Formats: sequence, structure tokens, C-alpha cells
Amino acid sequence: MPKATALMISLSLAISASARADEGAHWAYDGHGGPEHWAELSKDFSMCGLGRNQSPVNLAGAVPSSLAAIRFDYPLETSEIVNNGHTVQINIAPGSAIDADGHHYLLKQVHFHTPSENQIDGKSFAAEAHFVHADADGNLAVVAVLFDDGAASPGLAALDPAMPDRTGQHRPVQARNAIAALLPPSRDYFEYSGSLTTPPCSEGVRWLVMKQPMTISPVQREALARIMHGPNNRPVQPLNARLVLD
Amino acid sequence: MPKATALMISLSLAISASARADEGAHWAYDGHGGPEHWAELSKDFSMCGLGRNQSPVNLAGAVPSSLAAIRFDYPLETSEIVNNGHTVQINIAPGSAIDADGHHYLLKQVHFHTPSENQIDGKSFAAEAHFVHADADGNLAVVAVLFDDGAASPGLAALDPAMPDRTGQHRPVQARNAIAALLPPSRDYFEYSGSLTTPPCSEGVRWLVMKQPMTISPVQREALARIMHGPNNRPVQPLNARLVLD
Repeated sequence: MPKATALMISLSLAISASARADEGAHWAYDGHGGPEHWAELSKDFSMCGLGRNQSPVNLAGAVPSSLAAIRFDYPLETSEIVNNGHTVQINIAPGSAIDADGHHYLLKQVHFHTPSENQIDGKSFAAEAHFVHADADGNLAVVAVLFDDGAASPGLAALDPAMPDRTGQHRPVQARNAIAALLPPSRDYFEYSGSLTTPPCSEGVRWLVMKQPMTISPVQREALARIMHGPNNRPVQPLNARLVLD
Repeated sequence: MPKATALMISLSLAISASARADEGAHWAYDGHGGPEHWAELSKDFSMCGLGRNQSPVNLAGAVPSSLAAIRFDYPLETSEIVNNGHTVQINIAPGSAIDADGHHYLLKQVHFHTPSENQIDGKSFAAEAHFVHADADGNLAVVAVLFDDGAASPGLAALDPAMPDRTGQHRPVQARNAIAALLPPSRDYFEYSGSLTTPPCSEGVRWLVMKQPMTISPVQREALARIMHGPNNRPVQPLNARLVLD
């Protein structure tokens, strides 16, 4: 398959998760479809097993470096909120973007995991939000926001009335303020090169992990876990030859 | 295939290149076996096409960072010199090692490419030596030394009498001073995460590219190219989501 085609397939899987539940091999977070079996479920998922640059990771031993600040251009107009059976996802209308290291990425969607997928120095967090971006060639960059147990998240509170309880449920949503409230005030970040954390586990994904965690209340955390059908975090993958940049 | 097995296969291919010429799919640097076809030659070579973290690369836009100095413990006792049809390789006797970022790697072999495989800011060099190391789990780290056109390399001059002209030729060799003379006085380096530059193009390889180039004379360069059967450099691969650390 030409690389461009593979990329477009990865991208469409990443950003059309609403279709994903009905297509391709069934995968899950436990049992026969769980993470340790993803690579066996379909040959399109082979990178889940063969990849040596997979996500999530434990961000440890980060090398101090002079990473450029990410420029956020985030009007954050939203279009719909979807429960795809794996996560709850808010699709973003065209117009929001980041510039990272001189590279321009458009924000496509925001979705959640609980507990967190990435860890920092071995610490798992209560939840993690992924802001998934793509450049014009389909290369992905994910801004990750970690949530500690604590005070209720105003962003999640604002999303609460729109939350789709059932798999396959779509709802139009206006949630720009809610999405904006998910982001931490400080935009300092760790960076590493990784993959999608769900099948097909495609690599070549820039991970931009915000250092400042936000908080989520136990009630919000439980509600999110219930709607998303229990824990939806892939276990951490080895860093192998990668360094994490601080 | 379990990851450990795949790793050991990659490693054995990397460090037993003398056997490689007779085993598996035929590959080359041009024609039907050339780099653009490697992924089609064998399913074991699929990463050559699918991989998003491949080597070599153009080291550009490096991020200033505080990489720890590499500690070299290099008695450099050599065992034999081999012409395997793809390169000329000096096998190193057990006992030489590096420590990089707290990680211990044993030096297995040193081999050559001309012109260089990696580039710096778009510049190709006359030649490149690869010092290939492996840790106890089979993870690879390559120290790369670039050579500009210029004065003769004392290291290559010392190796000259032992150089095996013909594919498949092995010769015992004592060449510790020659190998030591290939290394630049300054050990400042760039680091990135990449792959083997030859099939099976396995990823998860730490690349430690010395900044200070050495020199090679035109006569040495031509002799090396003739023995190695013409250019033996894989074209540079896209960085994709990777950053280069300076």
C-alpha cells in the first residue's frame, strides 16, 4: 500500500471513530479483543504488535531542551458529540489549529480516556483528554491533557448535559467554552514521537503532553468511565530508542 | 512472532552480516533489489516500507537539549574483517562498550557506507562509519561518524592492507588503533530514534551521530566504493513525528 494511502486510512480511522465501531475487526480494552491481542485481530493492526515507537508511554528521564512554545489558534467551534463505544468524542468544526515547531496542524476532535494512558514518572492519572490534530498530509499531532483526582472539571461539567450515554449516539453540540476549559493555563509540555493508542496503532504521531494536570471529581470520573464502558486506557508501551523532550 | 524473537532476528542480521549475503531475499542499492523495492522483497522486510521511524535521515532543525556525554569504554580488540557484498565490516571482540543516557551497549562491529547515509542540514558527506552496539536485550545503538572529502583517514590507511576485495572474503585482523583513529576528537553528537538502514529495517535503534566530521581522501573513497560495489547508501527517510536532539 502506498504510504499516503496508509496514512489516509490511519487518519480516517482516527477522525471518523463514529464509523469505526461498525467497521473492521472488533477490538476492546479487555478479553479476547484486548490490547495484548490487537495485533492478531487484523493484519491492518500489525503495528500494534510490531511497532517499536508505540503510545502511550511512561514519560520518564525527559531530556531538558529548548522546545518552542506551541501556538494555539483555538476558536474551538464544535459540531457534534459522539459515543463510539470506545470513547466519547467531540468533533471540531474547521478553523482550530496549532503551530508546533513551525508545523501547522488542524484540530479534528477531542476525546477522553480514564484512567490516563500516558504516565509521568510512573504516575497514572485519573483521566486524559486527547486533542487530535492532522496536517495537510495527514500527519497527526496529539495534545494530551492529564487530569488528577480533585475538584470537578468545569469543562466536563459543561459537557455533561450533552453526554451521549449509548454507543452509536450522536448529538449536535455547541461546546466551545467547555472544550477551552479542558486546557491547562500553562502550556509547557513534554514531546515524544509515538502512535495512535487504538488500532491500527499507526506510528509517526507527535505527542505533545501538557505538564500541568487539570482535575476531575470522582463523580465525573465515574460517569465518564460508565459512559465509555469501563477503563479505556491502553497499557504503557516501551520507549525503546526514544527520548522524551522536556 | 514474539517481539523478543523479532529483535533477535534483527540483531543477528545486523551483527552476522557475513551470513546475510547467503540468506533470505537478495537486496541491493539499485535495480530490482534497490531501496524502493526492499519492502516487496520479503515479508520480513515490511518495515522498510511501513515504518514511520526509519533511517537514515537529514538531521535538520535539531532541538538544543542537554544530552549527557556518551561514555566510551573502547579497548577495540578486533577479530576479523569481512566483505559481505553490502559493506566492509570489522567485527569487534567482546569488551568494548558505551554508556549513553545510563544505558549500557556492547560494540559488535564497525562498517562503512559511501557516500554518507545520514545528512546534516541537507549536506551529504563522502562516507560514514557505523559503530553498531547492542544491549543485553538486543536493543541497538549506532554511533555514526561522518567523513568529508579531504586529507587521508589514518584509520582507513591502517586498514588498507587487510581490506577484503571480494564478496565473502574474511580475514583475521588486529586493528584496534585503526578503529580508534576513525573516531573524532570531539564526541558531541546529535541523537534521534531510527532503524537499521538495511533490510529488515527494524526500528527502535538509537542513533548517536557525531557532529565533528573526519576526512577521507578521494583515493580512499574510490577504493572503498569499489570494494563495496558502488554507492551503498540508503536514501534519507522522512523524520515524520521525530525531533532530532542536539
